[in-house]
Amino acid sequence: MRTKTRIAKSIFLTFVTIGIIALILAGCEVRIEGEMGDNLSAWNDGAAKQAIIEFVKEVTDKNNPNYVDPADRVATFDNDGTLWAEKPIYFQLYFLLQQVKDQAKNHPEWPEQQPFKAVLEDDRETMKTFQVSDLLNLALASHSGMTQEEFEATTRAFITTAKHPEKDVLFTELVYQPMLELLDYLRDNDFKVFIVSGGGIDFIRAFSEEVYSIPKEHVIGTAIQADFISEEGKSYLKRFPMIVPPIDDKEGKPVNLHRFIGRRPILAFGNSDGDIQMLQYAADGDGLSLCLLLHHDDAAREWAYDRNSSVGHLDKGLAEAKARGWTVVSMKNDFKKVFPSE
Amino acid sequence: MRTKTRIAKSIFLTFVTIGIIALILAGCEVRIEGEMGDNLSAWNDGAAKQAIIEFVKEVTDKNNPNYVDPADRVATFDNDGTLWAEKPIYFQLYFLLQQVKDQAKNHPEWPEQQPFKAVLEDDRETMKTFQVSDLLNLALASHSGMTQEEFEATTRAFITTAKHPEKDVLFTELVYQPMLELLDYLRDNDFKVFIVSGGGIDFIRAFSEEVYSIPKEHVIGTAIQADFISEEGKSYLKRFPMIVPPIDDKEGKPVNLHRFIGRRPILAFGNSDGDIQMLQYAADGDGLSLCLLLHHDDAAREWAYDRNSSVGHLDKGLAEAKARGWTVVSMKNDFKKVFPSE
Repeated sequence: MRTKTRIAKSIFLTFVTIGIIALILAGCEVRIEGEMGDNLSAWNDGAAKQAIIEFVKEVTDKNNPNYVDPADRVATFDNDGTLWAEKPIYFQLYFLLQQVKDQAKNHPEWPEQQPFKAVLEDDRETMKTFQVSDLLNLALASHSGMTQEEFEATTRAFITTAKHPEKDVLFTELVYQPMLELLDYLRDNDFKVFIVSGGGIDFIRAFSEEVYSIPKEHVIGTAIQADFISEEGKSYLKRFPMIVPPIDDKEGKPVNLHRFIGRRPILAFGNSDGDIQMLQYAADGDGLSLCLLLHHDDAAREWAYDRNSSVGHLDKGLAEAKARGWTVVSMKNDFKKVFPSE
Repeated sequence: MRTKTRIAKSIFLTFVTIGIIALILAGCEVRIEGEMGDNLSAWNDGAAKQAIIEFVKEVTDKNNPNYVDPADRVATFDNDGTLWAEKPIYFQLYFLLQQVKDQAKNHPEWPEQQPFKAVLEDDRETMKTFQVSDLLNLALASHSGMTQEEFEATTRAFITTAKHPEKDVLFTELVYQPMLELLDYLRDNDFKVFIVSGGGIDFIRAFSEEVYSIPKEHVIGTAIQADFISEEGKSYLKRFPMIVPPIDDKEGKPVNLHRFIGRRPILAFGNSDGDIQMLQYAADGDGLSLCLLLHHDDAAREWAYDRNSSVGHLDKGLAEAKARGWTVVSMKNDFKKVFPSE
């Protein structure tokens, strides 16, 4: 009898222990679920944060009619002005200007040729008159002629050392803390997060993994052509100065994102009129979607601009957001913190 | 004293229980590691299977000098003749011929125009003389003019109902069981697995998730252009008859795969001379790589062909494999089972 009691006690204690462990594990899960949205700590409580949490809750709840299979949980983000700052000019332009200067020795014709002449002479008055075609010429000329690996190394060197002209920090320090949290929050909820940028695809890939935890294959941008070359037992891709159509801006964004991803996003986040078509494409799919525009209205902590800005011009987007009920995120009111270092 | 003993016993039992649970969990891990390569059960033991297991072991072992970070574990697979059969003609061609017939009512000029005339009249003699340019004309004409969603629906309908002309099964039943296992095995070892096919990107995406568990965004192929159209509160992509250069074959494969993925593969698997450049690109990167060619030498269970075949032509590839030590996989000797239904 004594022995039986002991055995019974042992079994009882074993079950209690298992029970305690099970409770601890269950507790973990409850805690994780209870935290929903709590890791969006750089966001102020408000309509924008609420809309995000509500949307994620609906599409991830199997019992909700708006439930979306993880395979279809595609979220697309613009880069310049949405994930990091874009003032006074798109950060890639500094790289481009540097590249033109560095490569000038191989181009004796550039000092006499616009738009190169203005760049080499630092002629800001002329540079202010540059059209999109001038910038495209500069980009094509300075971003081609090398191998993919050489271009990546040059970009890495720039992005890890070059400083912003006004704020004395690396460009990569001007990413938005609330957006980093949002990317994590979406991934934690089994979203596939992509960048869809008008900027160069290979430029962004040089820092996307480190800065945004977005793998290179989830970066979509304007691409230039390359040739495959195999010689002397080595093979490489050599970049040549031609755009892969379309340029990844405006109507080009939905075209390119579908080419890369194969489905419509259910969440799209931009900040300028160049993002409207991407948001329309997300909004017009079947099922629930969330479209967001970041409004730069915080001159104290960042910059304030919309209708009258050439960089990040936002005008029609605000009207469309109002008409369609898209979420306008106010940097001033919705961002508790702007940059990670704050 | 009795009480203290009891408490001591309780604590002891608790620790024993925790120990047992820990052992069970540890046992699971040991079991999983012990299974390395065991889930390649449709492969015969031999040099090919051994090369795969050895390669995966090296690149996933942190203490091995050939260790590769998961972010860089990119594996690329050709589709036709590598993941599924391709005889007597590429399966997409049946779809294309069907599409031409279905769309003929909207093209009164086709019955008088080659290559359409031959397709509509089922004139096999003329069809045998088709050049690549003829097939491209047929593909561009029959795969454009509709929205992306309409094209996907048509493709889905075909792929889920159309039967192979010689074997009375769906085309998707002619995937290779050893390759399905290899895809799983690589993913289990944190590889990112991509298809890189000369075939149409949207055609393959219509079944890649279901058949290969490869998400649409991991499918790379020949793409055609599209326009973004927004009208009456709806927006969609309309396909138009122009290739996005380059065609995803031969030199085009490394160009396109890098455009989509942003890095070189460390493992590349093909079956024809159209895959050589993709394998070269993988082989010529830094670090360890594994290049494989499937050799169709099994007339009894599948088809036997190489140098004299127009479909899946393999000649230079065999020479290059010999010279570079690439792994030639013999369907006859290395595949224990060919198709899942066997």
